[in-house]
Amino acid sequence: MVIRRLPRYFRYLSDLHAAGVERISSTELSRKMHVTASQIRHDLNCFGGFGQQGYGYNVEQLHKAIGDILGLSRHYKLIIIGAGNLGHALANYAGFVRRGFRLVGMFDIDPDVVGKTVQGVTVEHMDALEAFCKREKPEIAVLTVSKPAAVEVANRLPGLGIRGIWNFSFMELTPPEGIYVENVHLSDSLMTLSQHITANSEITQ
Amino acid sequence: MVIRRLPRYFRYLSDLHAAGVERISSTELSRKMHVTASQIRHDLNCFGGFGQQGYGYNVEQLHKAIGDILGLSRHYKLIIIGAGNLGHALANYAGFVRRGFRLVGMFDIDPDVVGKTVQGVTVEHMDALEAFCKREKPEIAVLTVSKPAAVEVANRLPGLGIRGIWNFSFMELTPPEGIYVENVHLSDSLMTLSQHITANSEITQ
Repeated sequence: MVIRRLPRYFRYLSDLHAAGVERISSTELSRKMHVTASQIRHDLNCFGGFGQQGYGYNVEQLHKAIGDILGLSRHYKLIIIGAGNLGHALANYAGFVRRGFRLVGMFDIDPDVVGKTVQGVTVEHMDALEAFCKREKPEIAVLTVSKPAAVEVANRLPGLGIRGIWNFSFMELTPPEGIYVENVHLSDSLMTLSQHITANSEITQ
Repeated sequence: MVIRRLPRYFRYLSDLHAAGVERISSTELSRKMHVTASQIRHDLNCFGGFGQQGYGYNVEQLHKAIGDILGLSRHYKLIIIGAGNLGHALANYAGFVRRGFRLVGMFDIDPDVVGKTVQGVTVEHMDALEAFCKREKPEIAVLTVSKPAAVEVANRLPGLGIRGIWNFSFMELTPPEGIYVENVHLSDSLMTLSQHITANSEITQ
């Protein structure tokens, strides 16, 4: 699915644009990204063909065009539910702000955490969630609660204006009515890593 | 690439096995996982065909077989470099231990963090990295340092016995000699989410 590969193109083009690069050929881009040049031409053609034969791609235009497709030309208000270590780590990641994601609220049930300030945002108790959403209208909820709490929390979100859940709870959520869910499974990539190490041991030993 | 899909099969089979399910058909599994039954049959056939026509898959056997392919039947010693919020979040995730990944060391340069204990492990100063690796022989290094520090840290790892880097530094690392790198880009899935929200707005508004 081409759409799944666009964030990666976007990242590379952000770096190139920041470095002042104006044009890049599919061959150069393919070398940087470790994919074939024909894959790149195919992917970018799917979205209207930004390249010009023999001239390569205009980095700034392509970066903007892909950003538009990814919905990054607008801003999103985001809340984090679960103000533990992972919630803090995500709140502190400056890259999200640069890409238009603005943290407006954080929620938890732990009395040691409620009332603390993270990135200028005060952690509120979960009881305040519904009133907060009606007032501030966040569109994205980041779930960093534990696996057992995830379903209960997700079930409170329909009707509050939340349109997407970015789910780190290690529980694959069935999307509630009208909400898109992006399930993140951190350990999948760790298992891919261990598979590579093990496969490689068997060859070399 | 089938290998990329195996961790997801493994997760579902872990849950089924834990719930006491003994057999499952490709049709039932496909409904749970939201992929086609023919995709499942194709994927699992690639690894020798665990199913029996009309009887479905033996959950325990399939779980174990996929775990073996993923290298989860053995144990890995893992160190975390960067003891900030994300480092803490990963250290505290119990699921890794269950899958054979054991945290043996944590490293940082921040004097406020060095000396603290996380999950029974004392955070050491980066100066101690080389001696530690020679003594404890960890195989996996988790990088949760900032983007600017990542390349420097990665360059210290060859020759220390590290065979895989699980990289959360938001910097796509070129693998150092003899080391497999799994780059994790958290924001890619957030961009996929915003793309879905935006595409959906344009349809419904």
